[in-house]
Amino acid sequence: MSSAFIMTADSPWVETGPGMRRQILGHGPDLMMVRVDFEDKALGPLHHHPHRQVTWVAAGRFEVTVGGEKRTLRTGDSFLAAKDVEHSVLALEAGTLIDVFTPAREDFLAPAAR
Amino acid sequence: MSSAFIMTADSPWVETGPGMRRQILGHGPDLMMVRVDFEDKALGPLHHHPHRQVTWVAAGRFEVTVGGEKRTLRTGDSFLAAKDVEHSVLALEAGTLIDVFTPAREDFLAPAAR
Repeated sequence: MSSAFIMTADSPWVETGPGMRRQILGHGPDLMMVRVDFEDKALGPLHHHPHRQVTWVAAGRFEVTVGGEKRTLRTGDSFLAAKDVEHSVLALEAGTLIDVFTPAREDFLAPAAR
Repeated sequence: MSSAFIMTADSPWVETGPGMRRQILGHGPDLMMVRVDFEDKALGPLHHHPHRQVTWVAAGRFEVTVGGEKRTLRTGDSFLAAKDVEHSVLALEAGTLIDVFTPAREDFLAPAAR
């Protein structure tokens, strides 16, 4: 990271699955912010990781499952996924999530950016 | 935290200064997400803390200073404040920031919530 500022216009998007694309925002070794845009009905399937995650619904409506509990989240709502807790998100309409991880998701970084 | 889900309608707002209010979103011991709403010209004055911080501009336009470097950030832009690096934000119009800290800002929590 050469700058403290990450401008959305300069940050590349990566397709991560059907109807989903990801943009890495501010990140350091122990904190990483990622924007994920979803088309209607796009699914982030059930998964888990040792990184703690907090997510904010920036736009849209999502069916979110965390640790077996399911809720519908709308703009302004958030969820927390503790270490190794399984979670999934299903877009009930087109929307945007802001995911933040500690430590950083090194697996999201291209080798050149690590 | 009794639930992984934090609904904006259920989360209290705290006035933190002239034209600024804060809502604590998802948080655990090592990760805390906070929404801060700003009125036009509200100022988050220069400060620093050992917590690493990443911030997303959810709405509005801000003059942000980090480590002596100043930039204008708009919706979708972000910044990273490393440990103990001084930073400030000035709202150039009404807007919203999503701040995320590691570790959690225990000083933001009421004693009952710690």
